Amino acid sequence: MSQAAAHPLDPIFHPRSVAIVGVPSGGGSMASGFLSSLMEQRFHEVRPLYPVNPKIDEVAGLRCYPNLQAIPGPVDHVISLIPARIAPELVEQCVEKGVRSLHFFTAGLAETGDAELVALERRMIERLRGAGIRAIGPNCMGLYVPVSRLAFMNGFPSEPGNVFLISQSGANAGDVIGGLSRRGVRFSKAVSFGNGADLKAWELFDYAAQDPDTEIVTAYLEGIQEGRRLFEAIGRCARAKPTVILKGGLTDAGARAARSHTGSLAGSLAVFEAMCHQTGAIRAETMDDLHDLVVAVGTRARTIRGRGVVLVGGGGGVAVLSADALAAAGMEVPPMPESTKARLREFIPIAGTSVNNPIDTNAGTPELMERTLRIVAEAAPVDVVFTNPMFGRFGPPGGQDPRARDEIPAEQAERRAVEAARRSAELLAGLQEGTAKPFIALMRSERGSGGEAVEVFQQEAYARGVAAFSTIHRAARAMGLVLRWRARREGLPPVV
Amino acid sequence: MSQAAAHPLDPIFHPRSVAIVGVPSGGGSMASGFLSSLMEQRFHEVRPLYPVNPKIDEVAGLRCYPNLQAIPGPVDHVISLIPARIAPELVEQCVEKGVRSLHFFTAGLAETGDAELVALERRMIERLRGAGIRAIGPNCMGLYVPVSRLAFMNGFPSEPGNVFLISQSGANAGDVIGGLSRRGVRFSKAVSFGNGADLKAWELFDYAAQDPDTEIVTAYLEGIQEGRRLFEAIGRCARAKPTVILKGGLTDAGARAARSHTGSLAGSLAVFEAMCHQTGAIRAETMDDLHDLVVAVGTRARTIRGRGVVLVGGGGGVAVLSADALAAAGMEVPPMPESTKARLREFIPIAGTSVNNPIDTNAGTPELMERTLRIVAEAAPVDVVFTNPMFGRFGPPGGQDPRARDEIPAEQAERRAVEAARRSAELLAGLQEGTAKPFIALMRSERGSGGEAVEVFQQEAYARGVAAFSTIHRAARAMGLVLRWRARREGLPPVV
Repeated sequence: MSQAAAHPLDPIFHPRSVAIVGVPSGGGSMASGFLSSLMEQRFHEVRPLYPVNPKIDEVAGLRCYPNLQAIPGPVDHVISLIPARIAPELVEQCVEKGVRSLHFFTAGLAETGDAELVALERRMIERLRGAGIRAIGPNCMGLYVPVSRLAFMNGFPSEPGNVFLISQSGANAGDVIGGLSRRGVRFSKAVSFGNGADLKAWELFDYAAQDPDTEIVTAYLEGIQEGRRLFEAIGRCARAKPTVILKGGLTDAGARAARSHTGSLAGSLAVFEAMCHQTGAIRAETMDDLHDLVVAVGTRARTIRGRGVVLVGGGGGVAVLSADALAAAGMEVPPMPESTKARLREFIPIAGTSVNNPIDTNAGTPELMERTLRIVAEAAPVDVVFTNPMFGRFGPPGGQDPRARDEIPAEQAERRAVEAARRSAELLAGLQEGTAKPFIALMRSERGSGGEAVEVFQQEAYARGVAAFSTIHRAARAMGLVLRWRARREGLPPVV
Repeated sequence: MSQAAAHPLDPIFHPRSVAIVGVPSGGGSMASGFLSSLMEQRFHEVRPLYPVNPKIDEVAGLRCYPNLQAIPGPVDHVISLIPARIAPELVEQCVEKGVRSLHFFTAGLAETGDAELVALERRMIERLRGAGIRAIGPNCMGLYVPVSRLAFMNGFPSEPGNVFLISQSGANAGDVIGGLSRRGVRFSKAVSFGNGADLKAWELFDYAAQDPDTEIVTAYLEGIQEGRRLFEAIGRCARAKPTVILKGGLTDAGARAARSHTGSLAGSLAVFEAMCHQTGAIRAETMDDLHDLVVAVGTRARTIRGRGVVLVGGGGGVAVLSADALAAAGMEVPPMPESTKARLREFIPIAGTSVNNPIDTNAGTPELMERTLRIVAEAAPVDVVFTNPMFGRFGPPGGQDPRARDEIPAEQAERRAVEAARRSAELLAGLQEGTAKPFIALMRSERGSGGEAVEVFQQEAYARGVAAFSTIHRAARAMGLVLRWRARREGLPPVV
């Protein structure tokens, strides 16, 4: 892992041992999740993992130590689960033990606004800095680094990926990692840094910009700390890699909540917008935007050249609303050229269909669907193809019929759907490759079935560079944002 | 069912027998869904159901007839699944047989724009009208009437409810019925009427306005047919009952799609907006709006008096984004009065919490959550309480801990979650009753678990008058729209 000239933060992401101080004796609390997450990633199978709690001898099969000093070997990284009032004692132990980094899950410090607690936090950070120890937090979830087997919630993927997440909120970090993992995205590193008393956003952007394992950067920020350095670090990052940033606290109500949450002074919308604009970062306005933009820049969707959408599939009424939604999001739904319509009419009957865009083929077989998709993608006014992967239709005949479905055992039906989902992802990836235009899969999973097939499709599609979105509104919005970002970043004239 | 002076459309909704002409010999097509849906509703157990297809003698255990005339008894309602070119022959058979209504699933008529097919449709409708037979469609899914055991897709609830759905699109009707059913809503009647060659939207609004089984009306429209009559019928309806209308084809792209779909001339946004404004109908801008507004007007959410939201629950970062979302939707997130904060601080510790709004209690027990919700609901600036029903937290201790969860068999965990969901719905309904302020449940189901507990919660909550929405954005938007609608409808000064 270590580079010729490693970034100063690099050791934080690669601890050779971890101690969890104040580990609870049983399950049932948020604090107990730290031990279980590390064990789920099997950290303890490759590196020493030391639970610390003077009241117990053992927890989850691991020996438990009364304090840091009682641990026989060196400790690189400490996770503090203890209350704020006894934290200064742990700080002293860390200095004495020579740890490299201390993560405070511990809350109830500066973010309370209480002058005494603000001062307590400052004293601890000063003591740690003096000893060359970096602090993460307080009031945060800390590190998720798959290659180092670090995680702060259960269920995070153990495989590493190319996305670096910087989050001032632990819950929002969990939302991003959980939600994007289900869509096929994987992470190089994620840091929930809370109050940012020592380690701040700008340093993380600075690290992400040069991290060879990171190709995409995304962040949830509440406060703007050390604004000039943050601005410069985001600039370095956004020039090198797509950088998607969501800023909380941009309304008065949100800013008040941010003060309670991480003690942050939120700053104005205008300042933040200007920062994104000037640095070339992409501004996400909502958490949905953040998710969708990461998927977009992580796939061929990023290469979209213009606003022309062809939409294939969906019933007539859905097509009408979809066309409205695309137009409302600033995209275009160009009519198909006569030559394209003629090619489609060779095999699409007239009753109950449309070949004009949106295209409604009523196509029953994967072959006809593939033919349709290829023909429309080749049409000149088309910049991007939106379509619904229909797992049922791509399955064996009868897959659409409810009675036929009833006759297939549920498990077998699920297996078929999963197999169809896989084939559907391959089909779209092949078409995307062959036509050199991005394909977008619309899942409509919000109200529907969902289930394993949807997840398999999303994983397989993302891995092959095909972006999937839950609704056409979200897909259209994400594409519009990508076009505007690209136009700005590449110095092209604005497209939308 | 029949009233002293029944509405002229009433017989259509209460056929004493049904024939399905052109019923496929096997499953696997959309057409085969009509027979299976009627049988799923067990229509054939209470009324005669006659499949008609000269090529087969029996289908799904029912005797199949070669034509209408071969059926021994009277036939009230006919569903036509045959191609357009042979439909005129069926029209003659219907006239001869003396049926009351004919539903054309049959497509490929006026909506194609082909002059000959437009004329063919017109001739058939004229012939039927002359014989006093009402036609539904062509190019539509027809009737869903739970009390009469009529349905056009599988999986629709068999219990009747109070919502009347008018839809020009079959797929969108399916989306509304399927999606809202999962949220606890039930339907008195739904009509997918397609091209509207004979039976038009205005007649359905006229019926819904007087239908004693209907308390809420919702519609998806593409074209404006007989505008003056439509305007007057929507007015009658909206004065009597909350009436939520989504209009497709309001953009150029959508209007083009509407022409292909139902041959509709879509009309302008300005005209439609004015129609809603003047009649007191609520305009839904998207399908999500339509779903959410029906839930809102079907629950106590409808009684909201002002913009003040208190938000309880969710981590700090989620609270920040939620506050931003509420403010962006035109709602307010007022700080809690000092007296309210003092009452909360009696049992909410300072570390990792906020009592200012959004409220983050970290409350571990249902009792503490209930106490919190009651205290904040009583605060003067609060008009509505938004909260996350936390099924885990309402369960037994340890429900939140991933390791503990692993130790409980999946089935038992699901059962506990379902039970907790039920209790959570009861709790919110009780608080809503006791505090006389609406409570809104935020499901965040979009990215999460979902599953049975979420569905049980939504069903139980809706039945008790508590509205649930998938995200805070959607909840805030729906509440804002309801406030504006109420202010307009009740002649109150505009609130938002």
